[in-house]
Amino acid sequence: MTLTLHGYWRSSAAYRVRLALALKGLHHDSVAHDLRIGAQRADDYRALQPQGLVPVLEGPDGPLIQSPAILEWLEERFPDPPLLPFDTAGRAVVRAMAALVACDIHPINNLRVLTMLRQDMGADEAAIRRWIGHWIAEGFAALEMLIVRHGRGFAYGDTPTLADCHILPQVYNAERFAVDLTPYPALVASAEKLRHAVPQAAPDRQADAG
Amino acid sequence: MTLTLHGYWRSSAAYRVRLALALKGLHHDSVAHDLRIGAQRADDYRALQPQGLVPVLEGPDGPLIQSPAILEWLEERFPDPPLLPFDTAGRAVVRAMAALVACDIHPINNLRVLTMLRQDMGADEAAIRRWIGHWIAEGFAALEMLIVRHGRGFAYGDTPTLADCHILPQVYNAERFAVDLTPYPALVASAEKLRHAVPQAAPDRQADAG
Repeated sequence: MTLTLHGYWRSSAAYRVRLALALKGLHHDSVAHDLRIGAQRADDYRALQPQGLVPVLEGPDGPLIQSPAILEWLEERFPDPPLLPFDTAGRAVVRAMAALVACDIHPINNLRVLTMLRQDMGADEAAIRRWIGHWIAEGFAALEMLIVRHGRGFAYGDTPTLADCHILPQVYNAERFAVDLTPYPALVASAEKLRHAVPQAAPDRQADAG
Repeated sequence: MTLTLHGYWRSSAAYRVRLALALKGLHHDSVAHDLRIGAQRADDYRALQPQGLVPVLEGPDGPLIQSPAILEWLEERFPDPPLLPFDTAGRAVVRAMAALVACDIHPINNLRVLTMLRQDMGADEAAIRRWIGHWIAEGFAALEMLIVRHGRGFAYGDTPTLADCHILPQVYNAERFAVDLTPYPALVASAEKLRHAVPQAAPDRQADAG
């Protein structure tokens, strides 16, 4: 069975999918779409993803869009090793941590939003930095509390989950924008643990990196 | 078993949870937190929800946060009637539609983001309207294509799913901000169908509405 991931090396949402694929030991082919030149807005790509966003995962169930949905699909199709706890309470916590990143941090700082801020709101680079730093700090402060409560090395418990697959790419983004991460030691430690567990998923290890 | 929903009548994320509860025939108690005066940022509420956001659903697994996670929990705990299809391909489509709203439309137009636009970016009300209209139009255009492809009355198939629980609250928001919905007839029809199926979940039917 072939799995083909349409992504971009720096896309945080594509990075989530690479992490889940690596944790489950699944091989995938890669197709790169350079977001800086708007390659993802081409008509043939929009036939796969009507929003013109990465990632798309092509596999036996057709082209799948939206990384949170793709991660749930991987978990259902390839349950071993599990990336969700077995109890409903634990699953709700892991999914909440993932949604906190996927809904409340990442989309507000996404390239298309920053472009709109620059073009329509007249934001300069200092305002963009404040904007990015603000949403990461708000989200990470809440996540740190949850990880201190529920984590034991990873964000939830002592094995990686869908929460970690969301958190590490967001830490990578925070590093790119030089956000101070010292207030979030448990969060950073959990992200480092995953980074070292599956180094092949890292942005700078992708063929289109540069 | 008691289920207690902490929300606010106009919160689109709380509305999603009310829709799922209503579709599953579950009674719940309500606790209202007036977002306009920042009631959700009080310390005792932050003990339940460290971000200081609504909703929280209190139940047998403790306080649950983040509406996408709460909806998955409801589906696991109360599987009848199902709000996800039985096949992995269908589940991935429904979750993608839900994530499209939960990640790519709603959080960018949320109250806390609009406040930051006004206060830090100096956005006036015309710019705020353009901002809101832009993100709704981008997301709804993609959703309309997906609903035309997969819907048969509801967004996916002929029974309500988690996708519909996300779409109707976003339509309600679009109506509040007078966004033109004529380009999305399938989407609007599916939202109307759910609105009429469970009128008790509507914002203006909540005790704190006004």
